[in-house]
Amino acid sequence: MSKVFVDVGMSLDGFIAGLNGGPKNPLGDGGIKIHDWMFKQIAFLSHLKLEGGESNNVDNNMIETIFNRIGANIMGKRMFEEGEASWPEESPFHCPVFVLTHEKRKPWERPGGTTFYFTDEDINIVLEKAKESASEKDVRISGGAKTIQQYLNAGLIDEFSIHIAPIIIGAGVRLFEHLDMRKFSFEISEAVNSPTVTHIFYRVKN
Amino acid sequence: MSKVFVDVGMSLDGFIAGLNGGPKNPLGDGGIKIHDWMFKQIAFLSHLKLEGGESNNVDNNMIETIFNRIGANIMGKRMFEEGEASWPEESPFHCPVFVLTHEKRKPWERPGGTTFYFTDEDINIVLEKAKESASEKDVRISGGAKTIQQYLNAGLIDEFSIHIAPIIIGAGVRLFEHLDMRKFSFEISEAVNSPTVTHIFYRVKN
Repeated sequence: MSKVFVDVGMSLDGFIAGLNGGPKNPLGDGGIKIHDWMFKQIAFLSHLKLEGGESNNVDNNMIETIFNRIGANIMGKRMFEEGEASWPEESPFHCPVFVLTHEKRKPWERPGGTTFYFTDEDINIVLEKAKESASEKDVRISGGAKTIQQYLNAGLIDEFSIHIAPIIIGAGVRLFEHLDMRKFSFEISEAVNSPTVTHIFYRVKN
Repeated sequence: MSKVFVDVGMSLDGFIAGLNGGPKNPLGDGGIKIHDWMFKQIAFLSHLKLEGGESNNVDNNMIETIFNRIGANIMGKRMFEEGEASWPEESPFHCPVFVLTHEKRKPWERPGGTTFYFTDEDINIVLEKAKESASEKDVRISGGAKTIQQYLNAGLIDEFSIHIAPIIIGAGVRLFEHLDMRKFSFEISEAVNSPTVTHIFYRVKN
């Protein structure tokens, strides 16, 4: 049975992106720094068909493990639009991606196994379709913040991992707001130490 | 040479206290939950002359280590006023406490080795006095948020530890705001896993 998980980078002051994000400014002002640790790792760079990077460290292994479990993604319209402008032709997902949007658009198939499906159906129905596509693998709620918050408030997330960068960016898009705490709570599974980022894994009780 | 450190509990959404804090509502609405992990530990309870609690776990050992290094505290006026209303007669500091306030008040000596000194001098001068009092031990900037932010922005903190509780309180007093990031940055020393809270230790580069 597919699990539904969130895996997201966050600054110490709680932001997952800077201000003024958009197709021409992916991750917003200063937001790229939240992912500095990731951009150093082979497991991430090779996903974008880029050369170089480090391996054999806790961060690289973690990225590999997370990528390997993903059978389908769900993302918001703004995250898709930001990414569409900057992903290489071979999109870095290699599996179905469901984009929550009111825009009517036919499925968009990319080389390398990524197909984007555009839908304005109820988030429960989209999740069911994503689970079916993922088969024995898991479904990642990729973001942005609003999409994650919607799924948390609907009690549909099983696991939540956060990679806390040791930086303060001062302003941007907050991960934890607009949440209904009667709907879910977090329990720590594990925190993993690394020199560049702190990984925390939570189980979500709905 | 004394180190200057901050050690503080925070919710996952970045709050160190809830809304409406004050002498009659210490830590604000829901703020007490941030410290749930601590209130279970002998090392903390015995400091308040309370019975019971757990020992022989990573959280208890950590509290013990932190308490043992403190030779003097510096705190803001509001933190003092909240505490004054709820600490036992034997205040839980057992060393000098410098309170930043414009109120003129004579030093207040409590049983068990705590003396509160009230001062409106420059924060640099207060820190020098605290270091002198602490002798070979360290100085803790105890809080609240504004006092911590003042000392961070002045480039006067050496080490910063945060205990991230797996809870979201939605509103309250934020730890990381009003900060001037040109003045300092954080480097991870270590993250320590526990089932109830995640401890992260940072070095501060000024």
